[in-house]
Amino acid sequence: MKEEIFGRIAALRDRMEAEGIEAALVFQKVDLFYLTGTMQDGLLYLDPSHELLLIRRHPPRAQEESPLELVLPYSSLKELPDLIRGHTGRLPEVIGLEMDVVPVGLFRRLQGLFPAGTFKDLSPLILHLRRRKSPWEVAMMERAGEIGRRVYEEVPRVLREGMTELELAGKLLLVAMAHGHQEYIRMRGFNAEAHSWHVLSGPSGAVLSSIDAPMGGLGPSPAYPMGASPKRIGRHEPILIDFGTSYWGYQADETRCFSIGRLPQRLKDAFSATREILAEVVALARPGVSCQRLFERGWEVTRRLGYENYFMGPEGYKTRFIGHGIGLEINEPPFIAEGHDYPLEEGMTVALEPKMVFPGEGAVGIENTYLVTQRGLRSLTPAPEDLIEVSP
Amino acid sequence: MKEEIFGRIAALRDRMEAEGIEAALVFQKVDLFYLTGTMQDGLLYLDPSHELLLIRRHPPRAQEESPLELVLPYSSLKELPDLIRGHTGRLPEVIGLEMDVVPVGLFRRLQGLFPAGTFKDLSPLILHLRRRKSPWEVAMMERAGEIGRRVYEEVPRVLREGMTELELAGKLLLVAMAHGHQEYIRMRGFNAEAHSWHVLSGPSGAVLSSIDAPMGGLGPSPAYPMGASPKRIGRHEPILIDFGTSYWGYQADETRCFSIGRLPQRLKDAFSATREILAEVVALARPGVSCQRLFERGWEVTRRLGYENYFMGPEGYKTRFIGHGIGLEINEPPFIAEGHDYPLEEGMTVALEPKMVFPGEGAVGIENTYLVTQRGLRSLTPAPEDLIEVSP
Repeated sequence: MKEEIFGRIAALRDRMEAEGIEAALVFQKVDLFYLTGTMQDGLLYLDPSHELLLIRRHPPRAQEESPLELVLPYSSLKELPDLIRGHTGRLPEVIGLEMDVVPVGLFRRLQGLFPAGTFKDLSPLILHLRRRKSPWEVAMMERAGEIGRRVYEEVPRVLREGMTELELAGKLLLVAMAHGHQEYIRMRGFNAEAHSWHVLSGPSGAVLSSIDAPMGGLGPSPAYPMGASPKRIGRHEPILIDFGTSYWGYQADETRCFSIGRLPQRLKDAFSATREILAEVVALARPGVSCQRLFERGWEVTRRLGYENYFMGPEGYKTRFIGHGIGLEINEPPFIAEGHDYPLEEGMTVALEPKMVFPGEGAVGIENTYLVTQRGLRSLTPAPEDLIEVSP
Repeated sequence: MKEEIFGRIAALRDRMEAEGIEAALVFQKVDLFYLTGTMQDGLLYLDPSHELLLIRRHPPRAQEESPLELVLPYSSLKELPDLIRGHTGRLPEVIGLEMDVVPVGLFRRLQGLFPAGTFKDLSPLILHLRRRKSPWEVAMMERAGEIGRRVYEEVPRVLREGMTELELAGKLLLVAMAHGHQEYIRMRGFNAEAHSWHVLSGPSGAVLSSIDAPMGGLGPSPAYPMGASPKRIGRHEPILIDFGTSYWGYQADETRCFSIGRLPQRLKDAFSATREILAEVVALARPGVSCQRLFERGWEVTRRLGYENYFMGPEGYKTRFIGHGIGLEINEPPFIAEGHDYPLEEGMTVALEPKMVFPGEGAVGIENTYLVTQRGLRSLTPAPEDLIEVSP
């Protein structure tokens, strides 16, 4: 772990130097974990020759979890300038900060504490690094994928007509948690909430919500308008389960489809179409291929199969991606989306999720999380992909 | 619901006028839900004579969920000034914004869009309003408390020696979700994550973490260093279950204690002490009594009983509150804490949670969520409070 963490820090230093950022203050807990190995409450101060782990709570635990040597306890942000000056001899003037997530209130306090400081956005640099996973990170994601396999194996065992979506979601969450899943899925950004959410049956699969995704779901209430709901699951409905799992903070994202009794042929055909779209996108994907090109390929196959009205949501509300990077957060770069004309690189991990939405009827689709290798994509989510029709 | 929502909006307008805030832009999803009834992606623009619900996704759902009449779709923040000017005739110059949660990046975009605007912090005004609950809100919290009762009833049925904390947490989550719990607990603030987390057995109960709470727990990994862990539950250990539940977004917070086989007498005595502390704080609490005074009373009883070394965490890391407001978020005002010398008011809801931590051994404690009434506190969390010793 020590080598892993110091390798990430060295890579960030290179990028900071290239961007003219003298020192970084890393506050966001996921970035902090990535760069230090601990998620205790505090921040990382990083300049070309110092890495100080400043921890408010709980310093002994941070010391134990992180390979960084200097863990400095503090109780108020006011102490930061003195702590930094005390260890580095000076205060930085061009400071990197995660502008996409640090709130204005905290920013203003930092401006007061570093009055000579100019602040630049640090998040793009960190997110750029995080795109390509190390073998250790891939191993964690494989463990997450293995938890997903157990979750999907459980579905036919517990799926019963008349149970609510929330109850089915709870039963799957129990399997995931018993195998180490952290309950939570992490999504970067203000107002972003995620969980292992999309257990959607019949019309629920066609209910849109606040999130930019082909389906939203009713959710438990307007106060949580996404994912599984109190709706009871009936026969012959498409049951789409988009269930993220995690291990050691690393996430895998996966979708499979089920029904109680036979699914109407039209929806079966649509499900087969999503598998064909996925297969063709996967066949094209390898290092050097543009993410936008993969997005276009998905649409080309969709049009050829005649599903453009249903693909990735209803007309007017279509999601503008067919895949997304994934790792410690579920919305990391790269994005397999229009306008994202940059190449796939070896070591990237992406979730590809072609889906079809039929208003009033529901949604079907497939999703795997893949590692980009020299020879193409390798799936990290091993659950069988076939539609499973459970006897009523 | 319409009356409820418009009452909140009117109250916020009064406070905005008193603070010299001309118009508010409400972005945070919980505040947005409180003021509009919907949590779809967007914002509320509010001035003395207009309330515009600007929704990016999904406008028809926002229209259905909210009693506000003007739901205006937009696709980019750039459209905001024109949309606002188009409906109000002008752009505001003193603008309220939730400074504790709105990120710098979004703030800078808003500064660009409202170049003549001065921004003031809106959050204290909204949080002040949210402290006192309406009868409808109390009814939602009672439903959450009722879900909690079912969760705690389940514990003796499923608790087995050798099961992991995560597995027990999953089994309880299943009960909660089957009754409408939204899986998630909401905590306000940057880097704040909460869930129905504290299923802590034996030494886990004494593991501190990033959160300012008497106990943290190991969690599934350093990437989620809080709450239930893969640790197996053994005999004669204190099992502390601090399991928040929610209904329609409203939360109840509650703690009960269990053991497999007999709990050592010393820990039983400590548990009884927490009940005595709770009872004495509750006896003193009524409208007009200072929150700080309640905090002090908790400590007075603790000292009288001789538990000051264990109360609210180990020496040097003691949590500085014994209770907190609760509602749509789990860390709302008022705070029953040192320095919070303001009175309890009728309609406030608070969770009181005296707890004891024994390093290496674990934690015991009790917690209920209460409504402040003219006659004192009324519990909204009806699960029986006695320690339950399950046969091995």
